[in-house]
Amino acid sequence: MSGSTFGRMFRLTTFGESHGPALGGVLDGCPSGIELCEEDIQRELDLRKPGQGGIASTARKEADAVRILSGVFEGRTTGTPIGFLVENTDQRSRDYSDIMDVWRPGHADYTFDRKFGFRDYRGGGRSSGRETVSRVAGGAIAQQFLASQGISVRAYTVELGGIPADVVDPAGAQGRPFFSPDPDVVDGWESLVRDVKSDGDTLGGIVQVEALGVPAGLGEPVFDKLDAMLAHALMSVGAVKGVEIGSGFQAARLRGSDNNDPMRENTFASNNAGGILGGISNGMPVVARAAIKPIPSIAREQTTTTRSGEERTLRIGGRHDISAIPRVVPVLKAMASLVLADLLLMQARQSLSPLSGLMELDAFDL
Amino acid sequence: MSGSTFGRMFRLTTFGESHGPALGGVLDGCPSGIELCEEDIQRELDLRKPGQGGIASTARKEADAVRILSGVFEGRTTGTPIGFLVENTDQRSRDYSDIMDVWRPGHADYTFDRKFGFRDYRGGGRSSGRETVSRVAGGAIAQQFLASQGISVRAYTVELGGIPADVVDPAGAQGRPFFSPDPDVVDGWESLVRDVKSDGDTLGGIVQVEALGVPAGLGEPVFDKLDAMLAHALMSVGAVKGVEIGSGFQAARLRGSDNNDPMRENTFASNNAGGILGGISNGMPVVARAAIKPIPSIAREQTTTTRSGEERTLRIGGRHDISAIPRVVPVLKAMASLVLADLLLMQARQSLSPLSGLMELDAFDL
Amino acid sequence: MSGSTFGRMFRLTTFGESHGPALGGVLDGCPSGIELCEEDIQRELDLRKPGQGGIASTARKEADAVRILSGVFEGRTTGTPIGFLVENTDQRSRDYSDIMDVWRPGHADYTFDRKFGFRDYRGGGRSSGRETVSRVAGGAIAQQFLASQGISVRAYTVELGGIPADVVDPAGAQGRPFFSPDPDVVDGWESLVRDVKSDGDTLGGIVQVEALGVPAGLGEPVFDKLDAMLAHALMSVGAVKGVEIGSGFQAARLRGSDNNDPMRENTFASNNAGGILGGISNGMPVVARAAIKPIPSIAREQTTTTRSGEERTLRIGGRHDISAIPRVVPVLKAMASLVLADLLLMQARQSLSPLSGLMELDAFDL
Amino acid sequence: MSGSTFGRMFRLTTFGESHGPALGGVLDGCPSGIELCEEDIQRELDLRKPGQGGIASTARKEADAVRILSGVFEGRTTGTPIGFLVENTDQRSRDYSDIMDVWRPGHADYTFDRKFGFRDYRGGGRSSGRETVSRVAGGAIAQQFLASQGISVRAYTVELGGIPADVVDPAGAQGRPFFSPDPDVVDGWESLVRDVKSDGDTLGGIVQVEALGVPAGLGEPVFDKLDAMLAHALMSVGAVKGVEIGSGFQAARLRGSDNNDPMRENTFASNNAGGILGGISNGMPVVARAAIKPIPSIAREQTTTTRSGEERTLRIGGRHDISAIPRVVPVLKAMASLVLADLLLMQARQSLSPLSGLMELDAFDL
Repeated sequence: MSGSTFGRMFRLTTFGESHGPALGGVLDGCPSGIELCEEDIQRELDLRKPGQGGIASTARKEADAVRILSGVFEGRTTGTPIGFLVENTDQRSRDYSDIMDVWRPGHADYTFDRKFGFRDYRGGGRSSGRETVSRVAGGAIAQQFLASQGISVRAYTVELGGIPADVVDPAGAQGRPFFSPDPDVVDGWESLVRDVKSDGDTLGGIVQVEALGVPAGLGEPVFDKLDAMLAHALMSVGAVKGVEIGSGFQAARLRGSDNNDPMRENTFASNNAGGILGGISNGMPVVARAAIKPIPSIAREQTTTTRSGEERTLRIGGRHDISAIPRVVPVLKAMASLVLADLLLMQARQSLSPLSGLMELDAFDL
Repeated sequence: MSGSTFGRMFRLTTFGESHGPALGGVLDGCPSGIELCEEDIQRELDLRKPGQGGIASTARKEADAVRILSGVFEGRTTGTPIGFLVENTDQRSRDYSDIMDVWRPGHADYTFDRKFGFRDYRGGGRSSGRETVSRVAGGAIAQQFLASQGISVRAYTVELGGIPADVVDPAGAQGRPFFSPDPDVVDGWESLVRDVKSDGDTLGGIVQVEALGVPAGLGEPVFDKLDAMLAHALMSVGAVKGVEIGSGFQAARLRGSDNNDPMRENTFASNNAGGILGGISNGMPVVARAAIKPIPSIAREQTTTTRSGEERTLRIGGRHDISAIPRVVPVLKAMASLVLADLLLMQARQSLSPLSGLMELDAFDL
Repeated sequence: MSGSTFGRMFRLTTFGESHGPALGGVLDGCPSGIELCEEDIQRELDLRKPGQGGIASTARKEADAVRILSGVFEGRTTGTPIGFLVENTDQRSRDYSDIMDVWRPGHADYTFDRKFGFRDYRGGGRSSGRETVSRVAGGAIAQQFLASQGISVRAYTVELGGIPADVVDPAGAQGRPFFSPDPDVVDGWESLVRDVKSDGDTLGGIVQVEALGVPAGLGEPVFDKLDAMLAHALMSVGAVKGVEIGSGFQAARLRGSDNNDPMRENTFASNNAGGILGGISNGMPVVARAAIKPIPSIAREQTTTTRSGEERTLRIGGRHDISAIPRVVPVLKAMASLVLADLLLMQARQSLSPLSGLMELDAFDL
Repeated sequence: MSGSTFGRMFRLTTFGESHGPALGGVLDGCPSGIELCEEDIQRELDLRKPGQGGIASTARKEADAVRILSGVFEGRTTGTPIGFLVENTDQRSRDYSDIMDVWRPGHADYTFDRKFGFRDYRGGGRSSGRETVSRVAGGAIAQQFLASQGISVRAYTVELGGIPADVVDPAGAQGRPFFSPDPDVVDGWESLVRDVKSDGDTLGGIVQVEALGVPAGLGEPVFDKLDAMLAHALMSVGAVKGVEIGSGFQAARLRGSDNNDPMRENTFASNNAGGILGGISNGMPVVARAAIKPIPSIAREQTTTTRSGEERTLRIGGRHDISAIPRVVPVLKAMASLVLADLLLMQARQSLSPLSGLMELDAFDL
């Protein structure tokens, strides 16, 4: 199946390019009776607006007002597909002839051309970060559903440009620049962003996503394990080059005696597993991290090739973000939420098992 | 859809537990005319046998002889589903009462029970590493198909227990202990394995998977990008806790000017992207790495909980591998192969585009 | 997966209720380079407007102006998802309290309530025939793609209220009342419609769908055969209660010697098979018929039950169509088009077979 | 996705050819705790054996002994995939050179060759009716699950060679020749079969499938409605050329006032809808009928074409069934059972709706 649909039971299908008339999508499979209004979606969309997470993002104005077009009646989901739409309002027409026939390094210009034979070259088209508007909208619906089940998802920046944060206050991250869990690191990050910007360069970082209140039992081995679905979901976001669960790459350097999480009184004494054993949630917080590469649109001269194969230099103009962080943070939260909603609905089939009484679906207290 | 099927067009469905009568699967969607015989599958299965990759794995004998049951006629695939079977021959009946009602730390005992209300407790059942027999068999079929398209996939160990290898001879890794790309690191790894074993402990590591000859254009944005599918595929393998593409987590610490790969004469001067831009292959080698956690079955006493919620200590008996490496190496190669075969068939739809002549599908020379 | 997506490779996802803000959908998987503009879709939408096919439909005005929101650039598809939207403009607010808590016989009021616990009761909501707007729009895109492959699809009415048409001029049916292939039957049908209308009653009929130029080889046995996909597609349309292929139910009464189609000079001397053998197209015209039940909204008093379980009588007011014919005709054409587009893209994988040169994909001349 | 998998949540994947080593499949998604043993499957397989339903089928001996290979532990399903296998024991090697390069009329020889470039020509290969062994096995598992939910499915012959049965005793049909619901029609059918056989000809007929105890609420509009899924499922079976629901094609000739089913005291006074309104079960018995074409392998000389395009005559030797009835009857029952099991699991997601208490899932008494 083509690549614009995510999820089996709780399914998001999206469309839209950066410079087309609109972006939007369809969320199909949400159970009926979930409270949902446009504000619930707008709130999440506003988190990915430029300027929300500090100085790493440009001041480009994007209103991104969402309309719900179907699937909601009298403030509750009806069980039918939820269509939603965000019109592209800020489409200043400009001359794209400079990038029409030249491959911007680190961008998908070349690969989209090789895949489809031509492309909408205006601002990246479908490969633009603007497609994530639809992910965030779908994720907001997922979060409404998850909230009805006692599950919450949060995301925050744990490293920017090589400077790590201390995770001292993850709950407060949403209101802080860069969605930082650490009030004290913000100044250092802002200073780094300023320096890098004056160099005409860009920054990457690492984002952590956590789900609290996840009951044990979610995940569909052997291929659609919870960790595999999270990896799929997070890695599908533009700038992500790595995903790890729990102790992640560090686990490769631990001994088994250190990495195993002992159980005590039917909960776990540690969480190296990141809340997932054998691909199934174990009732502990689900923890994943994504590595974000630096934005490829730098203000320096770069060497590249034209469509006709000639080597040339290119300097990308316009205002660009210095880092995908913080704008990617609500996108990653959205993707993790979609995974959990989908796996919850998959697991609901076990309600028809004669053994359903034996399955405890409660999450552990933190 | 339930979790025992992987792929859309080139689809593997598997079944089987460690102590049931047999493991096997169905590979549906392979184009007709591909040369395939049982030896092609057996060769890959033999790579995951204990003892193939050095001393990290036990001497347990597993014959794992595969039978092809359908879909092949006169030595070529017919286009119909390929059924295959591996009988479990080494099922010594033993007493499992010691682990029947106790959760082994780091294993899926607890989560399978929470998910399904009961489980086949003999040797891990479906959560046992033995299920990877079917992955390797399916991957072997994928490799036959990929070979017909000029694509090869290889995998090797780049780090074991914190000791990195130099990638000096990846082509020779398949014949070397631990599938090591570096002849000189083998002694150090063997020595480490011996030490850890005598401690009753276990080891993790990092495996690199590479695909050579991959044409530009594979991957289905925005959700089923090549990197997202690879992350899904690799993370679905038992011990994997992290996946990264190209420069991966290191990209989070690079500047854009360093991480971008310049294009020169229509190829790329570096490969930080790991052969993937915007989720689509760019003609360069596709490079992914997977972090492998240490085997959870350690020979030391551990604290855990019983099915009825009582805390107790547990010492896991029997012979167990010290590390999932090297046995996981051919499994990861198989999963990457399945992803590429699937995305090739997805991309084949573009052969019906009026623009198909504009799409160059050749891979770059190395 | 939830039920608002149709197709694997050429995938239509739809949303929208009769009295919500808008209907629309996403068509994902269309190859790049196909010529497409809003007029191509509008032309098909206009065919399902009331008053297009004679007096059986009401004069309710529905503008149904479509907007393409993505996936098209410079008049050609880009290969990315095509979002489209039709605003609901004719939403006169009226009092629905009469049907809010009563089950209209033959309608889905009762079943939607049982499925979802509540429903959008205004005008049928998601179960209204208005959802077919999105099917027709998606089908129009499919028809553009099929045209690029030399395939055309047509549909016409072969029976109305028990009065059969002679199929004397199927090519002219699109411009004729009731999409009739027989100019001489139109008067009889119009007369019947008038009589039935004055009785406060409604009519059913039979619609034939044909695809010309279909190459041999389409269909995915054993479950997704061409005939199975057509049956799925056509039966999913509101009023359809039966589907048959080729000689259909009549085949149940024929002897094998009569029903078999002899081959002569590599074509077929008859077409009882309806262009499908073993679930795969054989190069002959693909022929299917759908039985359309009479519209359940009759102007007579009916016995039914309220939401609280009390028996009562109901007389449905408002202007309603006398028959789903002719408005259902372009809907069925759209569904058949989607099936063929999808199976063409599935079959494209065989372009990667070493045997692809042995597969003749031409359709037979008629 | 390729065509050997049926269902979303309750998924059957099959493989196997008539003259390969074995047939089999994987049933993935069955909830845990369902009682299942090999006898449960064998009982259904035995119903499709030659000689079970009277003289219309040949005396060819097919043992068809099934083995369960996974997914069952201590007599109950574990929730993991259920692999099953039936070895082909009766593979007398014979000379197929007579049909290797000639298209048998009414068979899939020609279309498989056009689709795949070559084929396993021995006895029809994948297009042989023998593939239905795997359907029946999968359907047997579905029936075990449905039984745990109070749902039963039955199928019987309502017409053979144009001679209709009276449905006087559907419950007794399973033990009667031709699975006849009418003891009195059996002699007439047997006599007809003898006459047709002596003519070297073959017969078709009509089979009815009924599901009792189906709760209201099953079906996933707008595309995966219950009737659409049944049509897909039944039409995917080899000889089926038509499917109808409830009053079916007859509905096309009824007035709305006759075809609507009045509701009385929260049940329905008639069942023209066949238990389905708006694509969702309404609590009444679900009723579908399938038209079966006559077996194409007739004993008479036929005109056809060779692989190289030359016209020739062909007389098909060997013993063949006179009609797909009765052997197709348990196959159709199996397919309907798979649909219902799948839609039950889909609907289970509504157990997570805050409105789940408002949904009555009981079926009506008959």
